[in-house]
Amino acid sequence: MNRSVLFSDFKIITPHDDKPVSVLEHGYCAVVDSMIEYVGESKENAVSALEKSGHKDFFEYDGKNKILCPTFANAHGHTPMAIFRNIADDYSLQDWLFGEILPREDKMIEGDFYYGHLLTLAEMIESGTACVANMYSAGMITSKASVEAGFRVQQTADGKFCKDGKWFTDYANVKELMDYCDQDAKGLVKPSLLVHSVYLYPGEFFTDLKDLSKKCGIPVSVHISETVTENENCLRDYGMTPVEMLDKHELLSDTTVAAHCVHLTENDRKILSERKVWVAHNPSSNMKLSSGFADMVAMQKAGVRLCLGTDGAASNNNQDMFMEMRLASFMAKGTTLDPTVLKAEDVFTMATRNGYLACGFENCGIIKQGMTADLQIIDYDCPQMWPLGNPISSLVYSCGPKCVESVMIDGNFVLYKHELKTIDLQKVKAETKRTMERLK
Amino acid sequence: MNRSVLFSDFKIITPHDDKPVSVLEHGYCAVVDSMIEYVGESKENAVSALEKSGHKDFFEYDGKNKILCPTFANAHGHTPMAIFRNIADDYSLQDWLFGEILPREDKMIEGDFYYGHLLTLAEMIESGTACVANMYSAGMITSKASVEAGFRVQQTADGKFCKDGKWFTDYANVKELMDYCDQDAKGLVKPSLLVHSVYLYPGEFFTDLKDLSKKCGIPVSVHISETVTENENCLRDYGMTPVEMLDKHELLSDTTVAAHCVHLTENDRKILSERKVWVAHNPSSNMKLSSGFADMVAMQKAGVRLCLGTDGAASNNNQDMFMEMRLASFMAKGTTLDPTVLKAEDVFTMATRNGYLACGFENCGIIKQGMTADLQIIDYDCPQMWPLGNPISSLVYSCGPKCVESVMIDGNFVLYKHELKTIDLQKVKAETKRTMERLK
Repeated sequence: MNRSVLFSDFKIITPHDDKPVSVLEHGYCAVVDSMIEYVGESKENAVSALEKSGHKDFFEYDGKNKILCPTFANAHGHTPMAIFRNIADDYSLQDWLFGEILPREDKMIEGDFYYGHLLTLAEMIESGTACVANMYSAGMITSKASVEAGFRVQQTADGKFCKDGKWFTDYANVKELMDYCDQDAKGLVKPSLLVHSVYLYPGEFFTDLKDLSKKCGIPVSVHISETVTENENCLRDYGMTPVEMLDKHELLSDTTVAAHCVHLTENDRKILSERKVWVAHNPSSNMKLSSGFADMVAMQKAGVRLCLGTDGAASNNNQDMFMEMRLASFMAKGTTLDPTVLKAEDVFTMATRNGYLACGFENCGIIKQGMTADLQIIDYDCPQMWPLGNPISSLVYSCGPKCVESVMIDGNFVLYKHELKTIDLQKVKAETKRTMERLK
Repeated sequence: MNRSVLFSDFKIITPHDDKPVSVLEHGYCAVVDSMIEYVGESKENAVSALEKSGHKDFFEYDGKNKILCPTFANAHGHTPMAIFRNIADDYSLQDWLFGEILPREDKMIEGDFYYGHLLTLAEMIESGTACVANMYSAGMITSKASVEAGFRVQQTADGKFCKDGKWFTDYANVKELMDYCDQDAKGLVKPSLLVHSVYLYPGEFFTDLKDLSKKCGIPVSVHISETVTENENCLRDYGMTPVEMLDKHELLSDTTVAAHCVHLTENDRKILSERKVWVAHNPSSNMKLSSGFADMVAMQKAGVRLCLGTDGAASNNNQDMFMEMRLASFMAKGTTLDPTVLKAEDVFTMATRNGYLACGFENCGIIKQGMTADLQIIDYDCPQMWPLGNPISSLVYSCGPKCVESVMIDGNFVLYKHELKTIDLQKVKAETKRTMERLK
């Protein structure tokens, strides 16, 4: 595929850091290698930007009835769990986790992580997502798979282990992934430290986790207040909420990604806001597992930084960020009884720019000169988006994976006119089917 | 297209009236003209059923990695409103209705209804829907469009008018649509009587509506208890709930389709159950417009008959029944804090068989011998449905419009391998775009 592309006469929709989401009605965007070199309404200037970079022989992508916007960054996933899709729905959490998921996870081998991860990446790419915060073990395997697929991942590194009932940290295991990211990941993988939750380890171990976190100096990835039970137990055991408990151990900072945050106190929101924590909202998963309704409007008012995630395919059961945008807005409107809250442009920004920032990719998620080219092309020449109306509304409330025509990550087309370019889907499907049958 | 089809080696999923949803792992289904002549696991018997009907020259549809299931019957829509898609989102109901929708509706002409309706049918067909309960004026125009498209509609007939502030009924207007349905609609259109709601007409007019309903003898189509305000005003004006008020005027029966029913009392549910009213649940619309969360579990327990709808594209903003199935289940799980309620098979039955019954098409919605062939083919050979797991779960929680490959209505392919066969989409798009611009 050509490394210089002119996106010609698109509706270009993008969030910004300093102003509202904007729409160019007849927009041109020039990409050279991995970078956006021009965005604006002049074809002449776009062409001249390409020529100045020595790319006279650029590829022109026609934008008739098409939208160009940033790809999604999914701020909370468990990618290999695609192999557990639709095996245990409508179950109680107890039956689901202990009866179906954990016994299978115990039997997973290397290839299961690798192909499960790639299957999720294929689904994500086909639905406009280019980046995921992946919380799962076997981080080295899935990181390498991500680089092969040309997909961005903030990948958890596991630095805690349990032997004979005793918990200990292992810096070397984290360092291995950190080194890989520095040396071989082509800027596509960023490491984070897996601190699963307040309830998975004994209280005294959090001092070790705090020390490990300081030593590594990488973001912390954690689930917070997903269920009422989690909060009740935390209050019983530590006399504080999960947010307070993690803050006490200095695990909350402006790089922390906290998934769920369904049950928060006002003080929790104040802490999350002050520490500039990224909260990854998972509306589908929270409803499906009966966790509850996160109060995004209260978080927004408290100044908490918000992004959006799908959670794993075992508890969602797909990886469709269009669905999450739509549902995040609907949930906020339904629970507050105010149809004007969490507007289309709010959830669009959460799903794009904010997700990238949460995952540590600061140069992605805005279409402007100097940013990295992570872009998706939406074909709105279809009944479900016709007539277009407000294009931001249309993206959030009417669009879906069917309308995603092409996806570019880091300047490379990973999906081109509905065809995956970097993943061998037949192989991935055969292997994941075999895995599913083996783990039964 | 051939009028005899052998669906060969599909996963066949269907609801039943007398037993749970069933799955045939290697199923064969023979269709001759509009009828299903065989369903089972024997290819030999399927072929012999075709041959007995004198159809040796049948077309064989290969079912590898494909699901055959009934099409959806959308039990609440306002089809021409597709032309108002995405023009006024994140607004208050007041600003949306009086500022944006009503001024446009006042200016609608014949072609706007016709093409708006066809645009919605195109979207519905592409997402596996073959039938809609359409509540809107201009019923003759949209009925004829439905027959042209080969699509089933329960269409409201308008028998009430207002002149100089005085309301009166007009039987002739209803009779015109009733006659059309009897004589020219090829069994595709059924009439219903438009009784919009308890709040649109003066209280004394309901006696006239009751008389009109008796005279017509057709189903009643009505909105009930969509908002708290509707209930409060009804209690203030009539000293009873909307359900009680409509029941008093004998407008609730086993053919009534009552949309929304978000705010019900225990007595309301008892009445709806006793009268065997069909309640059309609209989860997306109810959340988006901040109407609230209908308590489907309480209705289910009270024995109320349940089906599912999208509402119009101006308040949803698409016509995707997969979304509504998923959200109906999620909403029930989220609000009751019980992940085992409103299971995949419950919402699948609501979206298929129950919707058809609600719309008056008693011979559709089940795949068995002697039923009419309203069928959809789902291609699960894609990342979002892979590996398949429980196929009913997969249909409800993972599938989407992208996976709908073909749709057959009354034995005719209206969508064949992603291509619309009965609607001129280019024409429809050009006309609806023009309408949208004219009504601005």
